[in-house]
Amino acid sequence: MKFTIITLFEEALRPYLESSMMWKAQDKGLLEIEFVNLREFGLGPHKSVDDTPYGGGDGMLLRCEPVFNAVESVKEKDPEAKVILPTPAGELWTQKKAREFASPISKSQHYIILCPHYEGYDERILSIVDYKISLGSYVLTGGELPALIIIDSIVRLLPGVLGGETSAEVESFSEDGIIEYPQYTKPAEFRGMKVPEVLLSGHHEKIAEWRKANTKRAEY
Amino acid sequence: MKFTIITLFEEALRPYLESSMMWKAQDKGLLEIEFVNLREFGLGPHKSVDDTPYGGGDGMLLRCEPVFNAVESVKEKDPEAKVILPTPAGELWTQKKAREFASPISKSQHYIILCPHYEGYDERILSIVDYKISLGSYVLTGGELPALIIIDSIVRLLPGVLGGETSAEVESFSEDGIIEYPQYTKPAEFRGMKVPEVLLSGHHEKIAEWRKANTKRAEY
Repeated sequence: MKFTIITLFEEALRPYLESSMMWKAQDKGLLEIEFVNLREFGLGPHKSVDDTPYGGGDGMLLRCEPVFNAVESVKEKDPEAKVILPTPAGELWTQKKAREFASPISKSQHYIILCPHYEGYDERILSIVDYKISLGSYVLTGGELPALIIIDSIVRLLPGVLGGETSAEVESFSEDGIIEYPQYTKPAEFRGMKVPEVLLSGHHEKIAEWRKANTKRAEY
Repeated sequence: MKFTIITLFEEALRPYLESSMMWKAQDKGLLEIEFVNLREFGLGPHKSVDDTPYGGGDGMLLRCEPVFNAVESVKEKDPEAKVILPTPAGELWTQKKAREFASPISKSQHYIILCPHYEGYDERILSIVDYKISLGSYVLTGGELPALIIIDSIVRLLPGVLGGETSAEVESFSEDGIIEYPQYTKPAEFRGMKVPEVLLSGHHEKIAEWRKANTKRAEY
């Protein structure tokens, strides 16, 4: 699976993508990350990528031309690459969607993630976008953190990426909206707080019952 | 406002917090970021911070002792600091919450963000947590990206942080669930796609009407 990130802030994102699981996935050849510097497609002597909104208003908007050219520079090499735009107006990102993107059918896919920054983007940019994705009901400085979240949530589901292997599938959102049961590790007692007896019993059936009874659902 | 991030992956997070708006906010003295390396509070010769779950199961859980000690090392210096734990079982993060955290009352606050990693944490850790926060219905490798999202969404609302100033408040989620209107910048025509005439008219009243009529609501 390959992600091409179109951004002005490669240096802010790269270290996360080179750490921990992300590094392992790339080291194993399961993941390829490529950066495209939007600034290189900027216009004029200042390589400008944004301008003021028509009709007035605060802030600057990403202009069409640099974005179209940056996306096309990637599509020239891989016409099948799909474009993801993180935007609060997009479809809500869920674990179900992460699984779809991580599925064997899409595993060989190449996604271009376009990171808007500050106030927004020219609406015409949507004409080259395949997926508009919202991470939740909150506003961020740019699409950089959403890009990392989308990549992280997909990559950890790719077979062979996580250590415990099955662990990616047993937890939190394996079934829609279900949150996992409380978990405990050593010591059995810490500052007067004890691990529930049943978990120390070694009685697998009772443990399974306790976990089922204590599985919490999300409040939303 | 101050954030202390307890994590094993400082090097993956620091560059984002030193770029763009985050850098400006710190440069202006509106934001202070501190890292605490959880590894320093690890146990035994390998400075271990996790162990296997009681009752069986995949993956490793964060142990109480390193986490309690790390949090207490911060609270010793500032007993008023509040602890945030990003977890899928938490309360959903929204723009409304970001505004509450960014409000003048909490502006002087000091938040400790505890980043779990991989499979989870010992349930007893919740006893020292003030806010359990979920970023959405998806699973991530750890609490590092949620920590950045929480900080980003709060900091951009602090007065004096963003360039256009009012821009943080006019957009996407200023009223709950309302998404902004389409925006356009130069050129007026790009590859046959034209900016709506009314936006070029200079007629403020008609522009305001058009924007109101074209404001989209989120689908969720």
